[in-house]
Amino acid sequence: MASDGKVRIGVIGAGRIGKIHIENLVHRVPDAVVVAVADVALEDTKKWAAQYGITNVVADPKELIGDPTIDAIVICSPTSTHAEYVMEAAKAGKQIFCEKPIAQKLDATRQALEAVEKAGVKLQLGFNRRFDRNFNRIRHLVDSGEIGELHIVNITSRDPAPPPLEYVKVSGGIFMDMTIHDFDMARYLVGSDVVEVYAVGNVLIDPRIKDADDFDTAVTVLQFANGVVCTIDNSRQAVYGYDQRVEVFGSKGAAAAQNETPTKVTISNENGVTSDKPLYFFLERYMDSFAQEMNDFVTCIKEDTAPPVTGEDGLKSLLIAMAATKSAKEKRPVSLKEIG
Amino acid sequence: MASDGKVRIGVIGAGRIGKIHIENLVHRVPDAVVVAVADVALEDTKKWAAQYGITNVVADPKELIGDPTIDAIVICSPTSTHAEYVMEAAKAGKQIFCEKPIAQKLDATRQALEAVEKAGVKLQLGFNRRFDRNFNRIRHLVDSGEIGELHIVNITSRDPAPPPLEYVKVSGGIFMDMTIHDFDMARYLVGSDVVEVYAVGNVLIDPRIKDADDFDTAVTVLQFANGVVCTIDNSRQAVYGYDQRVEVFGSKGAAAAQNETPTKVTISNENGVTSDKPLYFFLERYMDSFAQEMNDFVTCIKEDTAPPVTGEDGLKSLLIAMAATKSAKEKRPVSLKEIG
Amino acid sequence: MASDGKVRIGVIGAGRIGKIHIENLVHRVPDAVVVAVADVALEDTKKWAAQYGITNVVADPKELIGDPTIDAIVICSPTSTHAEYVMEAAKAGKQIFCEKPIAQKLDATRQALEAVEKAGVKLQLGFNRRFDRNFNRIRHLVDSGEIGELHIVNITSRDPAPPPLEYVKVSGGIFMDMTIHDFDMARYLVGSDVVEVYAVGNVLIDPRIKDADDFDTAVTVLQFANGVVCTIDNSRQAVYGYDQRVEVFGSKGAAAAQNETPTKVTISNENGVTSDKPLYFFLERYMDSFAQEMNDFVTCIKEDTAPPVTGEDGLKSLLIAMAATKSAKEKRPVSLKEIG
Amino acid sequence: MASDGKVRIGVIGAGRIGKIHIENLVHRVPDAVVVAVADVALEDTKKWAAQYGITNVVADPKELIGDPTIDAIVICSPTSTHAEYVMEAAKAGKQIFCEKPIAQKLDATRQALEAVEKAGVKLQLGFNRRFDRNFNRIRHLVDSGEIGELHIVNITSRDPAPPPLEYVKVSGGIFMDMTIHDFDMARYLVGSDVVEVYAVGNVLIDPRIKDADDFDTAVTVLQFANGVVCTIDNSRQAVYGYDQRVEVFGSKGAAAAQNETPTKVTISNENGVTSDKPLYFFLERYMDSFAQEMNDFVTCIKEDTAPPVTGEDGLKSLLIAMAATKSAKEKRPVSLKEIG
Repeated sequence: MASDGKVRIGVIGAGRIGKIHIENLVHRVPDAVVVAVADVALEDTKKWAAQYGITNVVADPKELIGDPTIDAIVICSPTSTHAEYVMEAAKAGKQIFCEKPIAQKLDATRQALEAVEKAGVKLQLGFNRRFDRNFNRIRHLVDSGEIGELHIVNITSRDPAPPPLEYVKVSGGIFMDMTIHDFDMARYLVGSDVVEVYAVGNVLIDPRIKDADDFDTAVTVLQFANGVVCTIDNSRQAVYGYDQRVEVFGSKGAAAAQNETPTKVTISNENGVTSDKPLYFFLERYMDSFAQEMNDFVTCIKEDTAPPVTGEDGLKSLLIAMAATKSAKEKRPVSLKEIG
Repeated sequence: MASDGKVRIGVIGAGRIGKIHIENLVHRVPDAVVVAVADVALEDTKKWAAQYGITNVVADPKELIGDPTIDAIVICSPTSTHAEYVMEAAKAGKQIFCEKPIAQKLDATRQALEAVEKAGVKLQLGFNRRFDRNFNRIRHLVDSGEIGELHIVNITSRDPAPPPLEYVKVSGGIFMDMTIHDFDMARYLVGSDVVEVYAVGNVLIDPRIKDADDFDTAVTVLQFANGVVCTIDNSRQAVYGYDQRVEVFGSKGAAAAQNETPTKVTISNENGVTSDKPLYFFLERYMDSFAQEMNDFVTCIKEDTAPPVTGEDGLKSLLIAMAATKSAKEKRPVSLKEIG
Repeated sequence: MASDGKVRIGVIGAGRIGKIHIENLVHRVPDAVVVAVADVALEDTKKWAAQYGITNVVADPKELIGDPTIDAIVICSPTSTHAEYVMEAAKAGKQIFCEKPIAQKLDATRQALEAVEKAGVKLQLGFNRRFDRNFNRIRHLVDSGEIGELHIVNITSRDPAPPPLEYVKVSGGIFMDMTIHDFDMARYLVGSDVVEVYAVGNVLIDPRIKDADDFDTAVTVLQFANGVVCTIDNSRQAVYGYDQRVEVFGSKGAAAAQNETPTKVTISNENGVTSDKPLYFFLERYMDSFAQEMNDFVTCIKEDTAPPVTGEDGLKSLLIAMAATKSAKEKRPVSLKEIG
Repeated sequence: MASDGKVRIGVIGAGRIGKIHIENLVHRVPDAVVVAVADVALEDTKKWAAQYGITNVVADPKELIGDPTIDAIVICSPTSTHAEYVMEAAKAGKQIFCEKPIAQKLDATRQALEAVEKAGVKLQLGFNRRFDRNFNRIRHLVDSGEIGELHIVNITSRDPAPPPLEYVKVSGGIFMDMTIHDFDMARYLVGSDVVEVYAVGNVLIDPRIKDADDFDTAVTVLQFANGVVCTIDNSRQAVYGYDQRVEVFGSKGAAAAQNETPTKVTISNENGVTSDKPLYFFLERYMDSFAQEMNDFVTCIKEDTAPPVTGEDGLKSLLIAMAATKSAKEKRPVSLKEIG
């Protein structure tokens, strides 16, 4: 940390999510300072970064990792590079924030986690939804016992439109790419380990997704060690926008998080009483959660506490995603014990 | 009362509201029996009444009023006849339910009330909205002190479409015909007397209503003796249907009654999230309240208690309506003391 | 049918649901007349029936079935007697309404359906929820194409409190007794056949239910022939009351039926903004649907059309319930082909 | 403007609202730069400003007004100083943003506006609610004709708790201090001039407010030149929080803005179904609107367009507030013509 107590951060990758993190770190995280950015699109990134007063822009991430004035590395580069940068940053003694997933493969993930553990640095995974105020509130209601003993969790998670087909092909499949957020959410809310997964996958939106050996519609059932059962329903295309809801049900009642909307305006006319569609997509819906996530990352460094989402959390959701993929393909429930 | 303990009822007028009362008395008021109906449309009414097992149908209301086997008279004939039938029924010692208003004139109203008092019979006025489960619940919240000391009441009361112009011409004006229900509702909720009225009337929907020396849009402010202020906004035409809402606000919180709807279904699509329009008009919205009103009328006869809405209530709302009419025309607040 | 065009009905069993059907037939089904009731509690039933003008009350159902003046039999006796009365009524040429299920066993069910088919009479099953205005509306939205091609259905169905343990023991299990309504609802909404069932059962509320070899909490996934996947979550105990919701999701949007409530009143105070709990239980929530169900039964007799819920519907839901029970016990998806 | 195209701003007054404007200008208004701050609490302000990289902090506002490198002045000092600083800033050729009101007196207000006009500079008044996304949306629905011809506007505006008594005494009264925001909102939504005001004021919360010759509860009716009637109900104390709602009603339908809440979570338990109270007070509810207001101020300078809220708007709302005060005291409607 610098003498002013600010955490000095280097960001690898200034694509869409990298830019969001940089903006948030600059404007909404008072205890952080972005000292350097690495991106292959060097000139564009330099121009863009200048408006935030960031002058140290490089093409090679290793320059950041090797920079002794940098305390923490935020990894926003393509998924395929995550594990490598995590390991190198760990070796260099940096605190690490890494977008999810660390890797699509179990081995690479475990290797990275081992490097982190060996180096004794912190690693926070980018499961940003935990920082959404709605889901956060639900979690606290569960924790505080207001819902009683938890029995059932229902998660609805639907995207407004499918990603480009090229992305689908390298995404690792719907469970690895999309549902993995819901797996982490389920684990976050339930506070127990998943023991068995049953998943049904369908292609109902775009047949080319079938050609890519993937699904565009999925229903998953998770059984937790503590007896909770969780359903998750996913679609790659909800014409009314990004549908992100959660309901928990227990012995003392239920709590539900409805969608966030652009306004609270309703219009009454001959067609009925109409309110807003949900906020369009994750950039709109989870805008605040991205800022909170960075704030909590910086806080855990400053206060030397455990990160709110760990590498272990990333590993566990990866295992569930692998089990779900296997379940959907083999059309049977898959025990977590079968995986890894 | 008959030996079976049932209240024997004669109904004067089998028009729209008369038919509703008869159906409710037959099917939903176990302690009542409709023994006779009077209507000028004798043949049609006979046919209609037969399906309810009612065989005693006459043209002349006085036959009912004079029938010694009848305990109570329900008056649903045109407004201009109310006062006369009330007085005759009172003289004949009958218990009386009368649709509102008793009369559009103060003298006639008072004369009728005096006849009722002299005869020592009961008179219940047809302010059916008091029996709506929503407004009833609001009243009980106020009564029980859950809202604390009451400060403000807001009533929204809009019809889906204006009545026929011929009706408007003899209606006594919007305050006497439409807002009078809201005046009674305000009195019911506040439990105090109105001391001053300020009303603004406009013609924004149909210029012919102006020609009839009436308004189609109105805003009224009532000041109550206990310090509560009540706003009422009326329109003769809400394109989304019958808008009937009430909000009370006090030192411990607020309570609001939203509109009732045909279903609880919402549709999410590219246009937004749409729920039902309110139930179309008073026959739909207040269906249950009409039945409850008859039940309570019969109960107050059986148990010899005061009717839940009295002739005095009718008189007081009439006075408020007269003050509101005067206020809107003279463009100044009118004290209730100025009237009657 | 009688010369007045009314369908003459005999009701077997005047317990809770029998009484509801009789009241509805008397008050809310103009084209029906209840001419006789059979119940073992002869004296009590006679007294109760008298208030509806029903004087023909007998102890032995066979008297009704044998009565040539009766057109239709409504069977509300205990489940164990359904199949027998269906068969006898069919043989006697009566139109039949039977509370669900026909039987808990496949053989008995099929035998009864064969008798019905052979006799060429109508048989309507008591899946009353199809007549609920909310679910009805959802079905019409699906049918009309407003939701587009259907992809996912989510059903939440939770009781306010578990039934008596003695009832649980003979109920056939949660899937046969409770979820079977949801199976029928899913079939009604999706309009396709279930091909595979996966169910998870838990005992989280009352350990004695485990002793009875049953579950009190269940999650079921249905796969339909047309690709739709349906989730159902059940609990025997929702402390906030009877939770009965449905959501359908498709290519053009989604539609959801929220719970019905006693009033539309909200209270704003220091604790938040609070609205009513759902209507307490099925008698409150489905009151109107029971009346509609009887109306439609009588209409299908008068107009000689197919009943809105057939014996075949009963059989199919039974098969799904058997598959779900098997799935929950064997912890694997069960194909409908495996059953029956 | 500086060579980088940024608008160079000096802020007078770094109290609560001044700090919010500075933070927003620094973090959320890319086209602005805060070059200097004036505040009497010099040392505290220096320390606070340093974290935003602002080093030029002075005690005397005139230093800012006289600084030729400054383009625009944002006035957040106490109300009693507004008019003077507006006039001086105008004379110095600065663009001006001034918190409302310019002055509590008509003369001082007019003098300031004349100085602004003479100098040919821009003056934007701090009616921040116009920038709230909800009210903004309502305005656009009215403008676009979606509501048809406007007939009725209802504004509910209640504070969570009364201000300190010392503040009440110098506030100019509830209509000048609190309702003035609603007057501007009404003008913004209706797009016409108020011609007559009727107001009722009460003291129902704290008798000391009566001693201060003010009201804590008020209902106001505004009549607009275009026939629209607007009701406003105010309370200084809503125990459930800051209640800020608007409803517009017209020939094609209605639009309503509900309260914003901390989360979209509902809890269902034995007490009912409870959702969040409104955001607590104006800092929470109007946080985004303050940023938008500054953005639009800077944009109107850069693009040399008229400010979205003008000095004229401030004057007109002041006149309405004066009329309302007079009306409440004299208990009669007051024409705007009577005032100034």
